[in-house]
Amino acid sequence: MAKESIGELAQPSVGGFCPPYEDLYSFARKYFPIFRSLTGPGLRRSLQLIAEELSTVGARLEVVAVPSGTACFDWCVPDEWHIDDAYIEDQSGRKVVDFKNNNLHVVGYSQPIDSSMSLSELDSHLFSLPELPQAIPYITSYYKPFWGFCLTHAQRLSLTEQKYRVVIRSTLGPGVLNYGELVVPGRQAEEVLISTNICHPAMGNNETSGPAVATFLAKWVHSLKDRRYTYRFLFLPETIGAIAFLSRNLQRTKANMVAGFQCVCVGDDRAYSFLPTKNGGTLADRVALSVLRELHPDFVHYSFFDRGSDERQYNSPGIDLPVASVMRTKYGEYPEYHTSLDDLDLISASGLGGAWEVYARCIDTLERNYKYKVTTLAEPKLDKHGLYPTVSTKASRDIVKNMMNLIAYADGSEDLLALADRLKLPFCELADLAETLHAKEIFERL
Amino acid sequence: MAKESIGELAQPSVGGFCPPYEDLYSFARKYFPIFRSLTGPGLRRSLQLIAEELSTVGARLEVVAVPSGTACFDWCVPDEWHIDDAYIEDQSGRKVVDFKNNNLHVVGYSQPIDSSMSLSELDSHLFSLPELPQAIPYITSYYKPFWGFCLTHAQRLSLTEQKYRVVIRSTLGPGVLNYGELVVPGRQAEEVLISTNICHPAMGNNETSGPAVATFLAKWVHSLKDRRYTYRFLFLPETIGAIAFLSRNLQRTKANMVAGFQCVCVGDDRAYSFLPTKNGGTLADRVALSVLRELHPDFVHYSFFDRGSDERQYNSPGIDLPVASVMRTKYGEYPEYHTSLDDLDLISASGLGGAWEVYARCIDTLERNYKYKVTTLAEPKLDKHGLYPTVSTKASRDIVKNMMNLIAYADGSEDLLALADRLKLPFCELADLAETLHAKEIFERL
Amino acid sequence: MAKESIGELAQPSVGGFCPPYEDLYSFARKYFPIFRSLTGPGLRRSLQLIAEELSTVGARLEVVAVPSGTACFDWCVPDEWHIDDAYIEDQSGRKVVDFKNNNLHVVGYSQPIDSSMSLSELDSHLFSLPELPQAIPYITSYYKPFWGFCLTHAQRLSLTEQKYRVVIRSTLGPGVLNYGELVVPGRQAEEVLISTNICHPAMGNNETSGPAVATFLAKWVHSLKDRRYTYRFLFLPETIGAIAFLSRNLQRTKANMVAGFQCVCVGDDRAYSFLPTKNGGTLADRVALSVLRELHPDFVHYSFFDRGSDERQYNSPGIDLPVASVMRTKYGEYPEYHTSLDDLDLISASGLGGAWEVYARCIDTLERNYKYKVTTLAEPKLDKHGLYPTVSTKASRDIVKNMMNLIAYADGSEDLLALADRLKLPFCELADLAETLHAKEIFERL
Repeated sequence: MAKESIGELAQPSVGGFCPPYEDLYSFARKYFPIFRSLTGPGLRRSLQLIAEELSTVGARLEVVAVPSGTACFDWCVPDEWHIDDAYIEDQSGRKVVDFKNNNLHVVGYSQPIDSSMSLSELDSHLFSLPELPQAIPYITSYYKPFWGFCLTHAQRLSLTEQKYRVVIRSTLGPGVLNYGELVVPGRQAEEVLISTNICHPAMGNNETSGPAVATFLAKWVHSLKDRRYTYRFLFLPETIGAIAFLSRNLQRTKANMVAGFQCVCVGDDRAYSFLPTKNGGTLADRVALSVLRELHPDFVHYSFFDRGSDERQYNSPGIDLPVASVMRTKYGEYPEYHTSLDDLDLISASGLGGAWEVYARCIDTLERNYKYKVTTLAEPKLDKHGLYPTVSTKASRDIVKNMMNLIAYADGSEDLLALADRLKLPFCELADLAETLHAKEIFERL
Repeated sequence: MAKESIGELAQPSVGGFCPPYEDLYSFARKYFPIFRSLTGPGLRRSLQLIAEELSTVGARLEVVAVPSGTACFDWCVPDEWHIDDAYIEDQSGRKVVDFKNNNLHVVGYSQPIDSSMSLSELDSHLFSLPELPQAIPYITSYYKPFWGFCLTHAQRLSLTEQKYRVVIRSTLGPGVLNYGELVVPGRQAEEVLISTNICHPAMGNNETSGPAVATFLAKWVHSLKDRRYTYRFLFLPETIGAIAFLSRNLQRTKANMVAGFQCVCVGDDRAYSFLPTKNGGTLADRVALSVLRELHPDFVHYSFFDRGSDERQYNSPGIDLPVASVMRTKYGEYPEYHTSLDDLDLISASGLGGAWEVYARCIDTLERNYKYKVTTLAEPKLDKHGLYPTVSTKASRDIVKNMMNLIAYADGSEDLLALADRLKLPFCELADLAETLHAKEIFERL
Repeated sequence: MAKESIGELAQPSVGGFCPPYEDLYSFARKYFPIFRSLTGPGLRRSLQLIAEELSTVGARLEVVAVPSGTACFDWCVPDEWHIDDAYIEDQSGRKVVDFKNNNLHVVGYSQPIDSSMSLSELDSHLFSLPELPQAIPYITSYYKPFWGFCLTHAQRLSLTEQKYRVVIRSTLGPGVLNYGELVVPGRQAEEVLISTNICHPAMGNNETSGPAVATFLAKWVHSLKDRRYTYRFLFLPETIGAIAFLSRNLQRTKANMVAGFQCVCVGDDRAYSFLPTKNGGTLADRVALSVLRELHPDFVHYSFFDRGSDERQYNSPGIDLPVASVMRTKYGEYPEYHTSLDDLDLISASGLGGAWEVYARCIDTLERNYKYKVTTLAEPKLDKHGLYPTVSTKASRDIVKNMMNLIAYADGSEDLLALADRLKLPFCELADLAETLHAKEIFERL
């Protein structure tokens, strides 16, 4: 017998996802230094930067504005905060703490002040970390009137007993809460959500990385020739942004969303992390676990009780959206978290790119994850369809065995993700087999 | 920032259940020596003693009388048995075995006899325990005509070959089967059953303890200002008593009972024990396991196959009532079981009181075990409701975390017992949080 | 008290199944040498032998004939193959390979040839096993035109470079595909299937054993005085036979079949094996596991992914028949598999008889596996029904305990197989108790 090709049953495909490593990091470098808070001009400049990047592929980000005072479920949109300057000056006129050097130096939403006071009077408005003496902590007081400065503990210890002039030139007044929204339509109205946060000032993993990865995922999704699902990308100030979005779009979102991901802390190289939905088992959980188990089987599997970002809102009773979180090193789980040490050196092109690739694989899995039903009764006669290898090798026997097992369970009751679990095969390999059988009309899609 | 109280979120309550230790034991001392059998005047005197104790708080025990010969399912109420005297006299006129010394000496339901016989003729009517030579066994022959004496093996060995006069002055004839019933009404018609046995003569753990604990639980339940559930206390001769009750009250009992407990062997200090319902998982099982795991995590967990008291009847096919059993040391599992060594020294105030406390906690858990549903969409804004600690400490962070987790799962689908399992928190702590949120109208009760 | 019998509650029965050891092996000896293929006269002679054996008890095998070219789902009945002679002759006129010596020597469905050729020309039509040099392999080419010879590797190495005459006198042309079918009716229309394969030429375990065991099971089932179920025995050429049967009988078979077994590889003494249905848990799986766990707890438990016989067709999507496989040593799992070493020495009377007994016990279990419901409320009064031992011994206490546990769960929701699992009792013991309670009208059958 002459050796013959085994036709459509060659090697299984393994992706072809090429993360835009350097573009991700270049974007991060531009995005990082903009001063952001829950509201205000810096947040709008950040959205503008994202919109410009998306426009390079013709995608148009919508910037939504919700007026201050708008009721959103149990919450209310706060006033808009502007800040021009913030410093502490010593008796010699030297600025010992200056917001212009690092925008973490001022407590977010600080009230204006221009006053002289002793070090002991000033002390209860200072925040530093004795256990991390070179780090400036990140502190906000969105809903309780307050003013304050954050500084390294080394700086704090160098302050001497004297009169300091404390200046914060800020205003808080009616304005708007902004968020960005991009919808990339697909053949089906069913939606996939990618949500990230844009309220954090100069920090890297949490949170320059999320907007960077989400922006470049959106560009990639927009560039796909054919999309099964509609994709919604949300760039939100944390908590109130998600609540404002949900309060305006709840019914439509509940009706359409099949899977969602909170895309934050996706920039460093130390770990991959997974945080499930409230009860687990949704399509979002299943897709993320399938991809992480294949690509990064040593990922850290958190509990929903460890949640801390907008998946809190998405998974609330009555909201109940299937939103899980795929991260690199999770918020709260690394020493630099919420300090100035979470900077551009903590994240990297490979850190951002690795996260991008996991998300791209999740999207690819969603697109290919159909239920299939065999069109014949009893086993199909594979040779008739050109699917039976004429030369039997270990590799061809394995392919035939996997195909026959796939056919045996292709009764339309389980999707390919479930069958990959059942058959203990990589999703991509199974999807390749299913698509071959579909092309031969041995399978129909449900 | 000045230190502030964290309002309603102080320390979780931990009970306030103070067992009436000495009252329980005093009652047991009075109850123990009364001669009881399945029917007859001793059983009525026992019910009278229980009724007197209940009347001290104004509760009125109903004493039910079912005539001999009444058909009850596959059974029939037996004739009523009276006994005045029972002894074995030797040739010298000395009473070598005398029912007046210990009422276990006569086999329950013995037929009358007055006859002289040799030791060998007597022998097949004597019962003793060679392996426990100082114990008088407890023997009955309710449904097979018979007469007999029980004695210690030491006594038996001391009997010599001679003529003995054997006297039992008993009568068996039409009468009634009695049982006691107390209903303490609550806001809801749904009932909780506490069932115990009153047919055993002078023994302590099995069964002076059950009537004692049930009587004082009834007094406590009667004294509660407000009751969600209706409580039914049954004081029954074993087996036929439960069958007679069920045959007269089955439909109503099935319609109303949400949880029941067979309260027997609740007097010693050696162990806590749990015996589940037939298939487990009922409210009775869940409440008892929650309380035992918290208060006495080293309790012994028996199988339904180890059953032996009236939970046999309550769990029969077609009856199917959710009756579990919470005990101290279980019947059949201690060497003194069903002998004269199970006496007033085997039980104690602390033994009875410990059981009382477990039952009181079970009742408290039942009363507080609601399903709650959060009234807001997305997370509530806790500070607005005075529920967010202004000073963040480990303790306050834990309380907030527990509260947010409770809120996340408060969609009305699971009761607090299920949520305590899910959140791995003590039921009481969760119930406190839920009641606070209910008072703030963040939760509604279903 | 005098010793009394404990009536109906004596020792539990343990079968009474006496395998026809020697008859099974005698039949195998007659069946083995017939030359068989997928179609043709040898296959019909094999069916004739089975029919004669069945006729000794009055059972009449129906021989079905499906014309060549008949479409069966995705398949088509092939032409009928006849073969008269096949040999390779060397230059000296000596037949170095001769089909008359062993009917495995010719590749099944070989095309006719009469031609001289060099050894190198012949080589690609020869099949041998270097790793098993004394074995003739079993090879077929049903659906791809081809001719070839199988020989031992020792023979092959002895061939020298010369001209060989190659002769195969075969014809392939329109005819029929035959299979045999025997239906033994029972009180119920629900069917039990025993399916085996008749297309393999001279091999023992795979597959002289299956037709032998199936034939003698059919004789035994036919001889039973009373049958609950209807039994269908199928003697099929592998794959196309099952597909042809299913394409003609699918709706009726799906409507009636409660359990089925693929009875192949049931002749050796090395192991017992179990291969489940596609999703497990059917009555066929449960019966087989119950019997194997009791009789041969060291049986090998395969996965459905290890399947390889007609259970492939029976378990296909849309067919979905509950057909499991009980075997001795499974196909593919012994070195002699599909070679001339799988001969009459590999199988034995005890090997065949052991398999027969397991199948007989499976059938007995099916016949007795009812759902029972207790007719009384609360526990029945056992002494009233003569079911309470008057002398209490360990054995009698165990019987009463098992009986009370059976009664406690006899609410009609689970069959005896499920209750045997629950009560951790042998099925036969439980069935004896249930039948006693049924005779006493304490149980009704559902």
